[in-house]
Amino acid sequence: MKYSFRNDYSELAHPELLEALLQASNEQHKGYGMDQRSDNAKKLIKQKLETDNCDIHFVTGGTQANATVISYILRPYEAVLACSTAHINVYETGAIEATGHKVVTEEGADGKLRPSDIEHALKAHYDEHMVKIGMVYISQSTELGTVYSYNELKAISDCCKEHNLYLFIDGARLASGLAASDVELNMFKDLCDCFYIGGTKIGMLSGEAIVLFNDRLKPYFRHHIKNKGALLAKGYVVGIQFEKAFQDDLYLRLGYQINDLARYLTNELIALEVPFFSESSTNQIFPIFSKAVVEELSKLYDFEVWEEVEDGFAIRFVTSWYTTKEVCAELIEDIKSIMAQFD
Amino acid sequence: MKYSFRNDYSELAHPELLEALLQASNEQHKGYGMDQRSDNAKKLIKQKLETDNCDIHFVTGGTQANATVISYILRPYEAVLACSTAHINVYETGAIEATGHKVVTEEGADGKLRPSDIEHALKAHYDEHMVKIGMVYISQSTELGTVYSYNELKAISDCCKEHNLYLFIDGARLASGLAASDVELNMFKDLCDCFYIGGTKIGMLSGEAIVLFNDRLKPYFRHHIKNKGALLAKGYVVGIQFEKAFQDDLYLRLGYQINDLARYLTNELIALEVPFFSESSTNQIFPIFSKAVVEELSKLYDFEVWEEVEDGFAIRFVTSWYTTKEVCAELIEDIKSIMAQFD
Amino acid sequence: MKYSFRNDYSELAHPELLEALLQASNEQHKGYGMDQRSDNAKKLIKQKLETDNCDIHFVTGGTQANATVISYILRPYEAVLACSTAHINVYETGAIEATGHKVVTEEGADGKLRPSDIEHALKAHYDEHMVKIGMVYISQSTELGTVYSYNELKAISDCCKEHNLYLFIDGARLASGLAASDVELNMFKDLCDCFYIGGTKIGMLSGEAIVLFNDRLKPYFRHHIKNKGALLAKGYVVGIQFEKAFQDDLYLRLGYQINDLARYLTNELIALEVPFFSESSTNQIFPIFSKAVVEELSKLYDFEVWEEVEDGFAIRFVTSWYTTKEVCAELIEDIKSIMAQFD
Amino acid sequence: MKYSFRNDYSELAHPELLEALLQASNEQHKGYGMDQRSDNAKKLIKQKLETDNCDIHFVTGGTQANATVISYILRPYEAVLACSTAHINVYETGAIEATGHKVVTEEGADGKLRPSDIEHALKAHYDEHMVKIGMVYISQSTELGTVYSYNELKAISDCCKEHNLYLFIDGARLASGLAASDVELNMFKDLCDCFYIGGTKIGMLSGEAIVLFNDRLKPYFRHHIKNKGALLAKGYVVGIQFEKAFQDDLYLRLGYQINDLARYLTNELIALEVPFFSESSTNQIFPIFSKAVVEELSKLYDFEVWEEVEDGFAIRFVTSWYTTKEVCAELIEDIKSIMAQFD
Repeated sequence: MKYSFRNDYSELAHPELLEALLQASNEQHKGYGMDQRSDNAKKLIKQKLETDNCDIHFVTGGTQANATVISYILRPYEAVLACSTAHINVYETGAIEATGHKVVTEEGADGKLRPSDIEHALKAHYDEHMVKIGMVYISQSTELGTVYSYNELKAISDCCKEHNLYLFIDGARLASGLAASDVELNMFKDLCDCFYIGGTKIGMLSGEAIVLFNDRLKPYFRHHIKNKGALLAKGYVVGIQFEKAFQDDLYLRLGYQINDLARYLTNELIALEVPFFSESSTNQIFPIFSKAVVEELSKLYDFEVWEEVEDGFAIRFVTSWYTTKEVCAELIEDIKSIMAQFD
Repeated sequence: MKYSFRNDYSELAHPELLEALLQASNEQHKGYGMDQRSDNAKKLIKQKLETDNCDIHFVTGGTQANATVISYILRPYEAVLACSTAHINVYETGAIEATGHKVVTEEGADGKLRPSDIEHALKAHYDEHMVKIGMVYISQSTELGTVYSYNELKAISDCCKEHNLYLFIDGARLASGLAASDVELNMFKDLCDCFYIGGTKIGMLSGEAIVLFNDRLKPYFRHHIKNKGALLAKGYVVGIQFEKAFQDDLYLRLGYQINDLARYLTNELIALEVPFFSESSTNQIFPIFSKAVVEELSKLYDFEVWEEVEDGFAIRFVTSWYTTKEVCAELIEDIKSIMAQFD
Repeated sequence: MKYSFRNDYSELAHPELLEALLQASNEQHKGYGMDQRSDNAKKLIKQKLETDNCDIHFVTGGTQANATVISYILRPYEAVLACSTAHINVYETGAIEATGHKVVTEEGADGKLRPSDIEHALKAHYDEHMVKIGMVYISQSTELGTVYSYNELKAISDCCKEHNLYLFIDGARLASGLAASDVELNMFKDLCDCFYIGGTKIGMLSGEAIVLFNDRLKPYFRHHIKNKGALLAKGYVVGIQFEKAFQDDLYLRLGYQINDLARYLTNELIALEVPFFSESSTNQIFPIFSKAVVEELSKLYDFEVWEEVEDGFAIRFVTSWYTTKEVCAELIEDIKSIMAQFD
Repeated sequence: MKYSFRNDYSELAHPELLEALLQASNEQHKGYGMDQRSDNAKKLIKQKLETDNCDIHFVTGGTQANATVISYILRPYEAVLACSTAHINVYETGAIEATGHKVVTEEGADGKLRPSDIEHALKAHYDEHMVKIGMVYISQSTELGTVYSYNELKAISDCCKEHNLYLFIDGARLASGLAASDVELNMFKDLCDCFYIGGTKIGMLSGEAIVLFNDRLKPYFRHHIKNKGALLAKGYVVGIQFEKAFQDDLYLRLGYQINDLARYLTNELIALEVPFFSESSTNQIFPIFSKAVVEELSKLYDFEVWEEVEDGFAIRFVTSWYTTKEVCAELIEDIKSIMAQFD
């Protein structure tokens, strides 16, 4: 089988997380996330968030987290505003709309929304014949591997507060986003109403931790999770993994680790004068190769072909906890050979 | 911590299933259930079903499986008919209704629906001012631990065919249901349009296998799973467990194992002249004790208090793959002591 | 064509309402209910309600009003509690569930819900695995022609307040309900969070006036009406009719008129020793006749056969603004002849 | 009050339609559209469509018609494709999404969708992570007053058939669209799966006739209408108006009448060298004036300010059955004066 750079959920789980699960295999736990290990995990997360004043709930996937949170926040006639490239707009098979809500989009830039985009959307939705924009959705990192800086995020946050909009941050790839930006976990409480900390894409079997800061978003959230089919019977499976991931900064360390490998690839490719589709600083990078190179490379490696562009194809390499420096070096060598072949 | 008979999802996972996962931890897998291990699992399940003519999809929970299947089958103006005690009617926080569909109920008997119940419901929904009943939902085993015999199931099935209703069987506790009844896996293809094989409650970390027999239920089902937020990125985690569970009849063996323990408890309690709330032959039993006994017993064990009844309370004991003969014998001894105390 | 007692919406519109429309046919009006005539109507209604502190919105039908209000009030994981015979439970083809919400039912008595029913339902919905009951739905008059007395309504209202439940009263047949009970329009503001004043069944072309008392139910309600497809372009058509209906008590007078005719029928039938299916004091009555009588009568008149009962069939006669004393007298004579025939 | 060119639903109803209603005021009708007059109307419409092989249902508004039809056609994971300026995308407060479906948009041209737009959208939605496009929505005439020619419509229709997409045509302003294009009523049966004939905007109190050609769209449609809260108790009110409108071509004649007045205005404005925002040939025209002129004009007339453009504002004049040549001539005179003032 070809080595895969296709995604960061191609491998079972990080050994330390697996080990933590195994150690818990001889215990009895309360169901539905009411167990001690989930409580421990929440305490550890709250320490990193530097606040006790939040509710944390574990679910199993990103689309599930997004649909659950967004449908909780919005009133029936309200919509969520997102970048046109946003996961909820493109890759969720209408899961948000299935809960009854329109995803209003603005083009943004580099996969990111700006305050001016929010203003523009609000201006276009001025009376009762249009959906009321009730919240803003962004992700850190974005679909294009870019990240919001603290200042960018603060500007979005202020704009939302000014216009009485909830702000929700999708953190499916938050570990990588944290490692690549100046935005740290203890800042979220002041920046947004809720966000989630992605586990699936950073080495967990599965698991996302939804964090609710705004008091209005807390009541009966467990009812809502169950209503959306997202309340896990063995909630402790996720709890145990988050407990471990937040015990000695494993979560953050893995973020740095995968970014480092992606940066190594990026630098090597830049040295080869390979152009890029986006300015990613995270674990997803989008180099552009000619059709011939892509074809040849796909015989050796598994990866995603992202988009046809003027001079060929943007493809995507994703690094994960499983990726090694060695395999990256090999990849670069193989790319060199193939590019030489088509020079 | 008190020993728990509260549920069959209180313990992580059966050692053989965990072991299978560990052995796969050094592989790369395709995402979203498109991997080889999930394919293997499906082949093994199809062997037991004795048909190739079905589609199988893995999801992570029962409510999720129910909501996904039911909302796929029904047209917007259609309803699902279920027993008033059914999981979808009582314990899913409106998850079915959240997809837009009414759950029409009939009282049934012993947690089971009968053809006469179906006929009664159809008669009451005769024109366009009432929902059209589009399908029937039953579960094997039921919420009360009872099971449908083959003949009962065949009668329901024939009634559904006669009235052009889809039949869906919830198998959250199918292992126990199979072991307790004369209904075997190879019979389902002729009995129903779809069902699911529960994994979470028989020793998996999580996982349910939805089986679709009816060709009309197959197209774009993966789109629908994603639309409902139920498409797991690491689908192979469930696939690997089902592969193991169906490799050497582990699934069925565990069903027998937990039923045997429940029967042991039942027989011992009958010997003590303890009455029961339902005639369960599966891994959930519902003995009735006086309030005083229940209070005393709850100091020693964790269990669910099911319902207040005339002479006290029906409580629920659930056996799982983790339960041992020894702990059951201890429980009986403790009950004897407590009952003696209040004689 | 046979004379119809089938319903109170079999005839176009009361002459005074039609006349009011005709007089407005040479005007230009603002669209979507923002017109002067709708404003006038709202003022007149507020006078009768004896409060300015409410919002009023016009829509075109009862099911539409119910689905719009209920889906506005409830959070996604919440349900509405209603009598099992309630319109929203039986006769709306799942319109409430189509907005995502379960209708929880209690049997009640005579088509009416009692505080004990509410307490019973609340007790059965105790944790996050069950829907949260968020509101209570009742109707005045009920599906069985019965009415709530002020004391009964007050008790329901107090119970709702105690348990923090919204109370919504369906007034599809409110004119008849007002005329038959000691509950008057000026009492609603203290009794419920919202209700609607039915127009379609008391002589309007169509039109229901939703009245929102509770401040939490007011913001963006027009957005919600539009979202539910219920915002009428020519809202003034309904507005003009309500203006007329509330100008000189036409609304209430018609309620008395149709009740008087129904009481005349009831008294005459009692004199004939005809039994009744419910103790109606409004414009729907449910006499019980033998199968033979019903068959014969159905050759002369159009009416609804309500339900098979022990000694024959309960049928329904409905009086409307169009019904005359003469046609009622004729009906009685015809019933006498037919009953004599089968003695 | 200022004379209004704001809309084509500012006036009660065309005198001939009102007269038809009055003549029916002394009859009893079956409820819910099962009456003789609705049947007559359907027969007359079928004659114009030149087919018996279609089902016709009356509802009361455009958004209601759109939401009802689209939610009937689509499977839960499917989306409707529309022009980004489409009514369902912009002006329905998320009513389509409220039924669970995404509105996928393409920019199109002049308010119209082209086969290339459909191909483009299909190409972008290629796997189960994206919504499946299940149908195409267009309108005749469009939001910008433009119309599809027969050849344009045929091309869209062929493209839909090729890709197995349902085609639905919104005819809220169909009378004007018919009068302005070479597309006639008898052509729709070969062009689309369903469409609706708008009544509200051509002189009815309210009323739209949904026409279903495709047999797969017919079963239980009345259930669906009721489920969406759109089944009118007094369906005959709409039936009577459609009966009249289709009796002696009143419907089509009114279309020509309002287009003629709009063309008169257009020609006069062109003579004044007023530029236009779109190339409308129907009863909505979008002249562009400077801010100063718009302000002055708004003191004399009521109209919609459509969009800020480079040289001022595009405003919208809409002609209706109520509009007279005289008032149009006056408007032109007033515009001349105002423009002269700011030269």
